[in-house]
Amino acid sequence: MNLLDFADYAGTCAFAISGTLSALEKKLDLFGATFIGVVTAVGGGTIRDILMGNTPVTWISNVEYFILICASIFLTFIFYKRIIKLKQTLSLFDTIGIGVFTIIGIEKAIVFGLSSPICMVMGLSSAVVGGVLRDTLCNDVPLIFHKEIYATACIAGGTIYLILHYYGVNLYFSQSITILSIIAIRLLAIKFNLSLPKITVSEE
Amino acid sequence: MNLLDFADYAGTCAFAISGTLSALEKKLDLFGATFIGVVTAVGGGTIRDILMGNTPVTWISNVEYFILICASIFLTFIFYKRIIKLKQTLSLFDTIGIGVFTIIGIEKAIVFGLSSPICMVMGLSSAVVGGVLRDTLCNDVPLIFHKEIYATACIAGGTIYLILHYYGVNLYFSQSITILSIIAIRLLAIKFNLSLPKITVSEE
Amino acid sequence: MNLLDFADYAGTCAFAISGTLSALEKKLDLFGATFIGVVTAVGGGTIRDILMGNTPVTWISNVEYFILICASIFLTFIFYKRIIKLKQTLSLFDTIGIGVFTIIGIEKAIVFGLSSPICMVMGLSSAVVGGVLRDTLCNDVPLIFHKEIYATACIAGGTIYLILHYYGVNLYFSQSITILSIIAIRLLAIKFNLSLPKITVSEE
Repeated sequence: MNLLDFADYAGTCAFAISGTLSALEKKLDLFGATFIGVVTAVGGGTIRDILMGNTPVTWISNVEYFILICASIFLTFIFYKRIIKLKQTLSLFDTIGIGVFTIIGIEKAIVFGLSSPICMVMGLSSAVVGGVLRDTLCNDVPLIFHKEIYATACIAGGTIYLILHYYGVNLYFSQSITILSIIAIRLLAIKFNLSLPKITVSEE
Repeated sequence: MNLLDFADYAGTCAFAISGTLSALEKKLDLFGATFIGVVTAVGGGTIRDILMGNTPVTWISNVEYFILICASIFLTFIFYKRIIKLKQTLSLFDTIGIGVFTIIGIEKAIVFGLSSPICMVMGLSSAVVGGVLRDTLCNDVPLIFHKEIYATACIAGGTIYLILHYYGVNLYFSQSITILSIIAIRLLAIKFNLSLPKITVSEE
Repeated sequence: MNLLDFADYAGTCAFAISGTLSALEKKLDLFGATFIGVVTAVGGGTIRDILMGNTPVTWISNVEYFILICASIFLTFIFYKRIIKLKQTLSLFDTIGIGVFTIIGIEKAIVFGLSSPICMVMGLSSAVVGGVLRDTLCNDVPLIFHKEIYATACIAGGTIYLILHYYGVNLYFSQSITILSIIAIRLLAIKFNLSLPKITVSEE
């Protein structure tokens, strides 16, 4: 197992845990929380695979993802008090997760022969759509639509990756630079409380 | 037409009617109610088929489902006063429906050669995702995420089915036991007002 | 480029702009508004393609749609004050859009050899599901479920198209009649403030 695989699993667990915690905060029952945990973890990659016609989707063919996710959710139920206190660690795993998912999405799209802008969309879809589905199912406007620098970090990192790929730079180097960029942008944004601008539209 | 087919049609009608009634209670117009009725009836099987790559999805290739659903919705518009009074009968058909859909989902997944945990997810998806989509489109948190023993009955029944299948038990016997278990669990849960536990998470 | 292609692009732009404006009114940030703009523009055709198994979906293989949509969204950010004043023009493009999307959806479904009722569903899906996804992601009950004659115009136009197709009428003539019917019904509905009836369900 190389580092990217490890980061993929760590990110998947972080997404499952964060989805489960959101659902518990929304007072969903154990089934609802499990459902949301699974959707958060696999939603982004699933939508990406469906759009590209890459079915059956990844987690259906490779059952180890599903087992890992269920284990994460189960452990969250038992140790939620401790896990909540680990929010910073969790947030770091989550940030590693979006970095890795962005790269995985882009690489799959490149294999499918898609154009660069669409590769970017596929990377972004892998990284953020799980959270969009989580919030929509919990009856919220998706968090990443109005708060925080999150998708922006993926777009910046994805652009760097695509440029390095275009110039034929070594794969491991490209991957490392991309993930580090995404993590750096996200952490800086959290530290300085940055967010994207909004345009105020008023209908007179 | 064997019993399973009959139960499949009865369950589909029950889902279409319950979706339509939900939409009318939400004051949607005739188009909105029709849309919700169709999504409730076909949503679960559609998501299952898309995830497995079994496209075009079933109800697109077999138009009789769509016609049956539209007829159910139309009759609901005309006779909604009487249908509301039949809620107990409808609830029974709905319970038969989730039992049958669980089995159909699992059987399709077995044919696709998927692992047991994923077969269970596909059975569950067939049974409950239509209702999840109905509630999400009506701007509610899905009912089965916070109320009632519903998915749990499907999981219990699905587990029984998979165990019987593993030991090569006769198909009709397995199907009957599974459906009866799901119905029994669901009716007991309604009778004794059972629901899944919730974990109260408070961020200090 | 024939007239239908031109109308397809105009409709796609109109959908992207209307989605973006909705999102800005909801106080989403630039990423959220872009996401909603893209989903509104491609959502209907995407769901249609996925249901039919026509993947990778159209806008993934033909990057010009995505570029056109991004350009429309970008221009909306810059000129939103002027664009809001052009609401009537935008509404006209939007109406042309649903007409064209209905035809495109039906024609694709005919090529796939689907039955007439399902062709109608595919046409309708192309035309209205983008708006349904937009409203669901913005945490609203979809507008077309409770207001305005919108889907009804598509159903009427689609029925006319399918009848003309059945009798082997010339393609361009059929397309023109269909689009003009949809536009006429929609404009009359707006002028006379028509809407579909609702059934009031009260549980005694």
